[in-house]
Amino acid sequence: MKYIQSDKNPQVKQWKKLKTRKERDKTGMFLVEGFHLVEEALTRKDDVEEIILSEKTELPPGLDYGSVPVTVVTDDISKQLADTETTQGIFAVCRQPKQTHTTGKTYLLIDSVQDPGNLGTMIRTADAAGIDMVIVGKGSVDMYNPKVLRSAQGSHFHLPVLSGDLSEWIVKLSADHIPVFGTALENGVVFTEADTRETFALLVGNEGSGVNKELLTKTTQNLYIPIYGQSESLNVAVAAGILLYYLKTAK
Amino acid sequence: MKYIQSDKNPQVKQWKKLKTRKERDKTGMFLVEGFHLVEEALTRKDDVEEIILSEKTELPPGLDYGSVPVTVVTDDISKQLADTETTQGIFAVCRQPKQTHTTGKTYLLIDSVQDPGNLGTMIRTADAAGIDMVIVGKGSVDMYNPKVLRSAQGSHFHLPVLSGDLSEWIVKLSADHIPVFGTALENGVVFTEADTRETFALLVGNEGSGVNKELLTKTTQNLYIPIYGQSESLNVAVAAGILLYYLKTAK
Repeated sequence: MKYIQSDKNPQVKQWKKLKTRKERDKTGMFLVEGFHLVEEALTRKDDVEEIILSEKTELPPGLDYGSVPVTVVTDDISKQLADTETTQGIFAVCRQPKQTHTTGKTYLLIDSVQDPGNLGTMIRTADAAGIDMVIVGKGSVDMYNPKVLRSAQGSHFHLPVLSGDLSEWIVKLSADHIPVFGTALENGVVFTEADTRETFALLVGNEGSGVNKELLTKTTQNLYIPIYGQSESLNVAVAAGILLYYLKTAK
Repeated sequence: MKYIQSDKNPQVKQWKKLKTRKERDKTGMFLVEGFHLVEEALTRKDDVEEIILSEKTELPPGLDYGSVPVTVVTDDISKQLADTETTQGIFAVCRQPKQTHTTGKTYLLIDSVQDPGNLGTMIRTADAAGIDMVIVGKGSVDMYNPKVLRSAQGSHFHLPVLSGDLSEWIVKLSADHIPVFGTALENGVVFTEADTRETFALLVGNEGSGVNKELLTKTTQNLYIPIYGQSESLNVAVAAGILLYYLKTAK
């Protein structure tokens, strides 16, 4: 195993750059941290370029890393790479999956969601609900942000999570006769009245302003969740959960 | 209006102590921060002891504070009271509502939820779903923690949110013929098969370990949400949202 001691090492510098969205976008790579996420990443070995291990961390006995190279670094370098305060000292350098236009029956489209916890939780929920693909529109927080990765608890490696132009996707899905359900507070129907089918796409939007109005004009039907009490709205990840499970089980 | 300049002032010291759970429990008081939460708190004026305003903050013109006293403090004191990095410089000192045993048709019982964002989001969701009362069991994060208050977006002031002994509550609800639905991964029925009625209580649990096993033996029926994909579980606030809306709309 390679051992790197200096944080001036060009490879260390390159890994540290992956902590910025700009570098992730440029290189098409991202970094995951912690035993669980590294293990999940290794279920797609072809997309793992390298494992980085702190000198203070043991490689877990059962970890199937195949022929993925492992580099050991000092505890100090490990801390510099970490996004968490008490890092487990294990990282994987991963390739972002290619943006293929695969086919599926069920989709979650996400417009301009800002909070990393919300985005990660929605990816995790889409995975749980058996959704085939998540499309994250421009204007959302980066899906490879460390906090998004942590909140999603490995679901990035379970289903395709792509960034894309939502307007184009809505047109494409509609052309394929897949109904696209927008979410809106006005001019919609109660979700329990939705014209549900086995195939669907759900479109959710920004925490404050909801889904972009122009996108809502392109959908098949817009749904709302009734508010029975005095709160003004629901958290977007909770709303996505209610709707995804409704559409999935009411079909 | 009173004006306090020194952070050595005994009243300032007392307010600062309210940032700890210990002092909140001891005094039965809590602090809310920001325009929106202060406005919500003032919908229950009897429970607001005082408004604190930074010298750099204007009292919003429409704010109906009745005869609640307003104290102006220096910007430095305001920052010391704040939980947020960029505070709006307005606070309310509130009384925790009395733990009355009011009657209602629908309840959310929360066992040992640790994350403030999850607890706050569940209180907000219960409000939206028109739930009559939330009971937070011992072992959960403090419901008056500033982050819980922010995530709940004012719902603390919309419905009774009480701390209580969940075991006793389950017995009491059952005696009143209100079915208590636990949530479990094993030995439950799919939630869409629940024996729903107009009255119900939903019991959700800890992020990692779920609901305490002993509590689950006391429930009427235990429900689970099927996982169709590869994720191991759902976020507890998302699960609570799916189940509350299902129980509310399927009745």
